[in-house]
Amino acid sequence: MSEYILNLLPLHEGEREEFEAIAPDAVHVYARSSTVTSEQIAAATVMFGWPRPEMMKGAASLKWFQTMWAGTEEYAGSLPDGILFTSSSGSNSRSVAEHMLTGLLAVCRRLPTYLDSQRSHVWKDEGPMKTILGGTVLVLGAGHVGSDFARLCQGLGAKTIGLKRTVTGPIAAFDEVRTMDELDALLPLADVVALTLPHSPQTVRLINGERIARMKDDAVLISAGRGSVLDQDALVEAMTAGKLWGAALDVTDPEPLPEDHPLWDVPNLLLTPHVAGGMRLEITRRKCVEMAQENLRRYLAGEPLVNRVG
Amino acid sequence: MSEYILNLLPLHEGEREEFEAIAPDAVHVYARSSTVTSEQIAAATVMFGWPRPEMMKGAASLKWFQTMWAGTEEYAGSLPDGILFTSSSGSNSRSVAEHMLTGLLAVCRRLPTYLDSQRSHVWKDEGPMKTILGGTVLVLGAGHVGSDFARLCQGLGAKTIGLKRTVTGPIAAFDEVRTMDELDALLPLADVVALTLPHSPQTVRLINGERIARMKDDAVLISAGRGSVLDQDALVEAMTAGKLWGAALDVTDPEPLPEDHPLWDVPNLLLTPHVAGGMRLEITRRKCVEMAQENLRRYLAGEPLVNRVG
Repeated sequence: MSEYILNLLPLHEGEREEFEAIAPDAVHVYARSSTVTSEQIAAATVMFGWPRPEMMKGAASLKWFQTMWAGTEEYAGSLPDGILFTSSSGSNSRSVAEHMLTGLLAVCRRLPTYLDSQRSHVWKDEGPMKTILGGTVLVLGAGHVGSDFARLCQGLGAKTIGLKRTVTGPIAAFDEVRTMDELDALLPLADVVALTLPHSPQTVRLINGERIARMKDDAVLISAGRGSVLDQDALVEAMTAGKLWGAALDVTDPEPLPEDHPLWDVPNLLLTPHVAGGMRLEITRRKCVEMAQENLRRYLAGEPLVNRVG
Repeated sequence: MSEYILNLLPLHEGEREEFEAIAPDAVHVYARSSTVTSEQIAAATVMFGWPRPEMMKGAASLKWFQTMWAGTEEYAGSLPDGILFTSSSGSNSRSVAEHMLTGLLAVCRRLPTYLDSQRSHVWKDEGPMKTILGGTVLVLGAGHVGSDFARLCQGLGAKTIGLKRTVTGPIAAFDEVRTMDELDALLPLADVVALTLPHSPQTVRLINGERIARMKDDAVLISAGRGSVLDQDALVEAMTAGKLWGAALDVTDPEPLPEDHPLWDVPNLLLTPHVAGGMRLEITRRKCVEMAQENLRRYLAGEPLVNRVG
């Protein structure tokens, strides 16, 4: 029996043909998450994209599903038993890393303050700035995002240290890889501390007031990954007292951040509303398509799939 | 007769000793621009720093003067005849280049709009972003600043084209070097157009309305160097009509920009008050000191000086 490939990815011209060339014997059906029918879902043996989790219960023929995002939590408990489940982990890591770098440079050059002046039509010099050239960047989490961010920092002349739970060997883009046990010892050495950790019992409030106190007085804190990793109240308190050069956060806890939260107004703190990743860059969308195509090739050849979750 | 070296540079601990080791037989006098006396200036045979131009008329013994800035216009007509005159051109190029990159990334990620939302405590997704990965960066001016900026862009995965009046061969950090004659032909190909040109009769309003119209609709314009290179009114008109993705300007014409100028409020236009360079980074200050030391060594050895202006 031939495969029925239900493709919900946001495809561009010529990309349907790419999928069809990889699986010439399959039935290829293209739809959007908003318009896909329960009949299509029931018939699909392979599915790519971002269907609503509640629709997945009806995927009676499904053998393999690849979500178009890096995160997979939303499908927990919603997928038929026994299917192959893969993610698109890594597809948006360049986008997230570039956003982190942008936030880092922005606070190094005091852009939040300069933009306030611009809005008031005021031409005012804010004095000293900061560079990462020659600085040490400590990255918590050495996965796709952490590695891509470290590579960008190395390109600007920084030294990079990656922190992982367990170290199995060198990782490209990191000058050193150390274990998370060494966090407290390494925090005082870092000019930049970058959080790229997922939410887990081990990561919740990992960066608390005590650890912020260990950081250099003029360090910069960057937060992507999940907002729960950071104790926001402790950060507000520390920065209000003059600790840290600045911070750039793309994630908060909760999201959206409540309108009356003091985090919004901390000086030289840049807050963006969880927009580092997603499908905001064409390179992310294309990578996602390529990851589906590579795994489809592997699936048909009986090879192990990349980014297997279940 | 031994040299009398009047050193007005902002020195750190240990740096006096560095100068004294290079010229052990000289008299070394240290002062600040604000406190230096006319007697010291009259006695100096060598001077480093940023003395007020009107004081230089009294430099009766002077043989060589090195200013601590890249620009030298302020001393035109103020220096004694026949002295050697050198600049610190290149000392702040990394700082300017990093500021340009920061502005570029900031508008690519729509930080001006996100900061407006932040100030209003609003969590709002602004949709698509832009990356320079795989893009083409056209740099007008291939000197220290242009080259340093190009190197940073290459590190982020962009292709770089440098434009010079005359091309004598390849320049590191530029994938291609072309002549300024080709500007009109190259503008439509660029994702980023970066201005690093000085003020001159040839550069005034070089980027006018017609040339902005030649740029890609979603290109980003970066301006450092001198504000007179850009026709600001034409830029306001074009961007208000939806042309360009964004712009980051660190220089305007005139400076300060008048409070009622429409440039302040153009969407996704970042305006900083000529703060890319100067002595805002320690690496700039140190480079300046090193350039003085290197030229002092050359001067005493009878070798040609670097950055000779007159």
